[in-house]
Amino acid sequence: MGMSELRFTLPDWVSGFVGEGEVVCSSVEERMGFVVGGSRENVRQGTGGPFGAGVFDSNGKLISLGVNIVEATNCSILHAEIVAIALAQQALGRYDLSDGRKEDYELVTTTEPCAMCFGAVPWSGVSRLVCGARGEDARSIGFDEGPKPANWVEALEQRGITVVQDVLRDEAATILREYAERGGTIYNAGR
Amino acid sequence: MGMSELRFTLPDWVSGFVGEGEVVCSSVEERMGFVVGGSRENVRQGTGGPFGAGVFDSNGKLISLGVNIVEATNCSILHAEIVAIALAQQALGRYDLSDGRKEDYELVTTTEPCAMCFGAVPWSGVSRLVCGARGEDARSIGFDEGPKPANWVEALEQRGITVVQDVLRDEAATILREYAERGGTIYNAGR
Repeated sequence: MGMSELRFTLPDWVSGFVGEGEVVCSSVEERMGFVVGGSRENVRQGTGGPFGAGVFDSNGKLISLGVNIVEATNCSILHAEIVAIALAQQALGRYDLSDGRKEDYELVTTTEPCAMCFGAVPWSGVSRLVCGARGEDARSIGFDEGPKPANWVEALEQRGITVVQDVLRDEAATILREYAERGGTIYNAGR
Repeated sequence: MGMSELRFTLPDWVSGFVGEGEVVCSSVEERMGFVVGGSRENVRQGTGGPFGAGVFDSNGKLISLGVNIVEATNCSILHAEIVAIALAQQALGRYDLSDGRKEDYELVTTTEPCAMCFGAVPWSGVSRLVCGARGEDARSIGFDEGPKPANWVEALEQRGITVVQDVLRDEAATILREYAERGGTIYNAGR
């Protein structure tokens, strides 16, 4: 065995994209625009799937930017949302971003979460989920978004997590199509 | 920001528990017994939640052992199944364990997967899921297992993944109760 460590690195371009100073996006469209920019860069640099996600605090300050790095890391878990959640928790030093419902954090994702990322949301402690493209937009280029319950929005809201859909959906879906046109890997298992 | 790396380490006891040589468990009960042993050690050493999981090949050879390390790593993603899947993919050097349906791998988990880990299974490329305790056993000590579809077994089987339930359920559930009795953290967000 000898395997007792997991270590993953984001693409080199990410630190330059995010920059040195604080990133503050006051509107939800600005926040989505920023993470869509991350997904676009991921596609154009050829570093992963056409998905980006970010965690922002209640002032619109970026805590973490995640992009899909499944193929580069050989890890099916590392969807953009998972990367963003894990990085934010690492930055804040706690597994419950809400710190016992004292703080509000938002997960902004360029495409509605797949079944796995949907299930990751309640554990993370975010209180708001903002989505760009629809799950059907991802399915239309071949991704199997998995067995997510039909009432997934209600299921999150029942747990106190607000869901906002279709923010810059067209911009986000354009990146999905660009990835498909470039022949990007559709990394469903068993293909 | 300055955050471009995710790095997680398993508890120190894991390498000694697994040992130097190959671990081969020919029956499903042996495989479950091994991962239940991992969950027990995680509880007794105080290194994480009462959950273990392993990926085994079609000869019963252990590829990876995962345990829950949510609290120690401050990462809500690192359930036992996620750790086991990521380590197995790292060991084999591919995100699709099945390698395009050429290979059969089994994920053995001491408790039925939560909503997140359930969603992670189809992406991983395993062809069989073996479960010990039931989700209700985890809920009975306070864990919110999340909004998993009621027909989750059928949803996996429709994707070609066989599901086996209740293997050493009592042994696995005993570890859950031991964790609760020791006052182990119930790491639902927002508590």
